Amino acid sequence: MIRYCTQCGQPVEPRIPPGDHLPRSVCTACGHVHYENPRLILGCIAEWEGRILLCRRAIEPRLGYWTLPAGFMENEETTLQAALRETREEACANVHSGSLFALVDVPHINQVHLFYRGQLQDGRHSAGQESLETSLFDEADIPWNSLAFRSVRFCLERYFSDRRQGHFGVHQFVLPPLPG
Amino acid sequence: MIRYCTQCGQPVEPRIPPGDHLPRSVCTACGHVHYENPRLILGCIAEWEGRILLCRRAIEPRLGYWTLPAGFMENEETTLQAALRETREEACANVHSGSLFALVDVPHINQVHLFYRGQLQDGRHSAGQESLETSLFDEADIPWNSLAFRSVRFCLERYFSDRRQGHFGVHQFVLPPLPG
Repeated sequence: MIRYCTQCGQPVEPRIPPGDHLPRSVCTACGHVHYENPRLILGCIAEWEGRILLCRRAIEPRLGYWTLPAGFMENEETTLQAALRETREEACANVHSGSLFALVDVPHINQVHLFYRGQLQDGRHSAGQESLETSLFDEADIPWNSLAFRSVRFCLERYFSDRRQGHFGVHQFVLPPLPG
Repeated sequence: MIRYCTQCGQPVEPRIPPGDHLPRSVCTACGHVHYENPRLILGCIAEWEGRILLCRRAIEPRLGYWTLPAGFMENEETTLQAALRETREEACANVHSGSLFALVDVPHINQVHLFYRGQLQDGRHSAGQESLETSLFDEADIPWNSLAFRSVRFCLERYFSDRRQGHFGVHQFVLPPLPG
């Protein structure tokens, strides 16, 4: 929620700019228009000897739950660079290149989640600053009831399904709001 | 470039917040941290009886050049909804559903471009507010030398190549900065 202008510090108000069709936060003093857009979350499905790397979250939301390494994409990087960086930061693990695997729309929180899949460069991993622990899981041992986010469940289900069929696709899903 | 705090209107300065690793615009008065992230551009490769819908731009940048209908994704919509909306707004055309076709990283301008492909619901199209004209082009007639953006060229080349082979993939490309 923008209350003051980023360019001059004066109050903004909702106005539809000329040629636009939605109200934006427009500065009452200098007229600067502030656009707010969805953010990209980038993550990795990283495999080592058939097992998948998960991180147990050390931060809210969903502290203590298991997730794929993922986080906000930064300016001046590519989607793949963001996915690999998040895997280094959260799991101290390096992934060989990577292929696009999933796009999850989460419109009720203005996010788009993209996941790449790839192989770890070696078996090494350990908890980064935002993780309590990291671990490699066989499919049979995935903590399905302790996963942090629905997009993580979606990715893992599709990944194991594709792996059994011997062919990886690019998957899409729109996450509806949680009930309540 | 953020100069003043969106929450209290006081000046910001670059600081690395605790637990972070990059400088952010942090408010000198209330401490609010402003994150700036890449933006998503969504577009459509819309086909009708084998021809592709292009729009001639009525606005800068690249006024007068031909483009696929595309624009900034808005909050509270999905990537597909954004692609279909842009096609309605710029070309007054309706597309049946759509499949993900291309992801183009443009890190030097902090953008990610996503393109869906789909069929027009009928042959109708006309110039929206941001277009001078719209037209359906056979592959042989695409105005290759008058295209507005490199990501449009990339999409069209891959689209026609896939169509010839009878199978559409999901394509990726990282756009380097233009020379100079």
